[in-house]
Amino acid sequence: MSYYANKKVLVTGGASFIGSHLVDKLVDAGASVTVVDDLSSGKKENLALSMKQISFIEGDIRMQSVANKTTKGKDIVFHLANVHGGRGFIETNPGELVQNFMIDGNVFYYCHKNTVERICYTSSACAYPTSLQSADPKKQVRYLSEEMANPFKEGAALADGEYGWAKLMGEMALKAYNKQFGVKGVSCRLFTVYGPRENESHAIIAFIGRAMLRQDPYEIWGTGQQDRNFTFVDDIVDGLLLSAERVTDCRAVNLGTDEITKIIDAAKTVCRIVGYQPSKFSFDLSKPEGVHIRAASIENQKKWLGWSPRTSFDDGIRKTIDWYSKNVDVQALRANFEKRLFER
Amino acid sequence: MSYYANKKVLVTGGASFIGSHLVDKLVDAGASVTVVDDLSSGKKENLALSMKQISFIEGDIRMQSVANKTTKGKDIVFHLANVHGGRGFIETNPGELVQNFMIDGNVFYYCHKNTVERICYTSSACAYPTSLQSADPKKQVRYLSEEMANPFKEGAALADGEYGWAKLMGEMALKAYNKQFGVKGVSCRLFTVYGPRENESHAIIAFIGRAMLRQDPYEIWGTGQQDRNFTFVDDIVDGLLLSAERVTDCRAVNLGTDEITKIIDAAKTVCRIVGYQPSKFSFDLSKPEGVHIRAASIENQKKWLGWSPRTSFDDGIRKTIDWYSKNVDVQALRANFEKRLFER
Repeated sequence: MSYYANKKVLVTGGASFIGSHLVDKLVDAGASVTVVDDLSSGKKENLALSMKQISFIEGDIRMQSVANKTTKGKDIVFHLANVHGGRGFIETNPGELVQNFMIDGNVFYYCHKNTVERICYTSSACAYPTSLQSADPKKQVRYLSEEMANPFKEGAALADGEYGWAKLMGEMALKAYNKQFGVKGVSCRLFTVYGPRENESHAIIAFIGRAMLRQDPYEIWGTGQQDRNFTFVDDIVDGLLLSAERVTDCRAVNLGTDEITKIIDAAKTVCRIVGYQPSKFSFDLSKPEGVHIRAASIENQKKWLGWSPRTSFDDGIRKTIDWYSKNVDVQALRANFEKRLFER
Repeated sequence: MSYYANKKVLVTGGASFIGSHLVDKLVDAGASVTVVDDLSSGKKENLALSMKQISFIEGDIRMQSVANKTTKGKDIVFHLANVHGGRGFIETNPGELVQNFMIDGNVFYYCHKNTVERICYTSSACAYPTSLQSADPKKQVRYLSEEMANPFKEGAALADGEYGWAKLMGEMALKAYNKQFGVKGVSCRLFTVYGPRENESHAIIAFIGRAMLRQDPYEIWGTGQQDRNFTFVDDIVDGLLLSAERVTDCRAVNLGTDEITKIIDAAKTVCRIVGYQPSKFSFDLSKPEGVHIRAASIENQKKWLGWSPRTSFDDGIRKTIDWYSKNVDVQALRANFEKRLFER
């Protein structure tokens, strides 16, 4: 029987891209699931498969009343809700992003107060020092290993913007609750997730969108030379479920593949599978492109979870395009593009 | 006329050691002052001089309802309230200290929402990288200058424990509200404050207490060789008032003197002024002693505020002992000592 069978589980941000996939698997595993989501970026339709089996609460987790009410009586909390967006949003909305300190602070406080048994905090590769991910070959690290981000180690604290700092500090806060009160949990550092139900605010779906729109020249943000380890959402969800089950000391664990793909090659793969060949790729160097290199070491995943991601980039892209082409409304897509919601 | 005349001012943690001195000066300057304090470490008697002229709200600023209610309608908020303690507390209570992320998050959020005109955030020397304050002469810096603590600069982010991280991130969050929304304010990095109304949880008052108790051998935590720039509370309050008036872009400013005193010399000064000569000083190396060296550069204070602290260490200690000897109850002091509340 699954570890999750009959467990009372809260998923904050459960109507989101990643959250909704997690909810589907938790329902399959026999958990009694509550979702809280303010639908600021999440969508009820993401929960179409599970809506009848879950309890859905529309609420803003920034509010303590909501954090208190929804964590009460829960065995496990998967805390995904946060202020987020694509690289464009992250660069221009610091005042909203720092509200993540408030969200995480409130959620951990009420999880502890309401004696939740396990907390699974979704951190991010953005917690890693940007210096290790720079173009400088003397500093850059091919595979980021968990100990390389640590607020108490010299050279290991230089997170990626306000978003990354909130994540690194969220991890530290969870660990502090563990140290003083014995709170059980884990921080999962998610690496560049993509898949069905994502929107055009992130690169892969923006790439698919551009291919669907037959954009020519086909636009890439930055030089296209950045390395990423695009990780398929089903793998991420498996990693989250295993982490919450097997890690209790609130350490941080990478969830990501070690398959590395350049941004330009990711775009070309998308175009190939969509079956569209632009005459030209254009590189908009005025746009933020994020760090130069970013990929997960999977050594600790294997050791601690007995697991690593299984979906190849080609397979994941195929599944994502399959979903997208069945669900996309080209009219809406064009509107999103015109409203500059791509990669934002 | 004072900048503060007729201003509606909130002081969070206003019944505390530092807060109450600030309240007294604000009242003198003609401000309309509200204090919110949960009296966890603050005391109503600290406000004896001003209580009749202020509005006092007993409330826990960790709660959003309190943060919302108390910031409403205010022109200026001095945000001092936080979970804090002496070095002993800081080392052993990380789970409580990280609640400062929640407190600051909520306070900034509601200050912005309630359109407070100015926010003065009390940060700390603990925001500076511990590496710069180590015993290693190749790394240590005699005078910490504002730019040396910066979450976005390599080598400038390694704050002092959970307490220091919450402060550095509080500064960053305030700055983020400034960058995105134009919120006005300042972060003041307070350096090792002492003076009347402090309790034995911090070094200077613990030293005075030990002298009053005629402790022999006279106990010092650690080697006694650590350098500090003990700064008198009246100076700190002047610095806070000037900062909130003159700095609006949410930068961080040091409030501290550049007069450096070794811990052992501070203890000896206290003993000399109290008129007590222990036969021996004992050094308890099992106790936490904090960083090795810590003092403020006062260059930017002078430039940005036209000000630096005026009270010499000897004068400040004299004033503090004068207050203490008039107010201390030796019975209570002995009880505090036995309850191990010294430096905790």
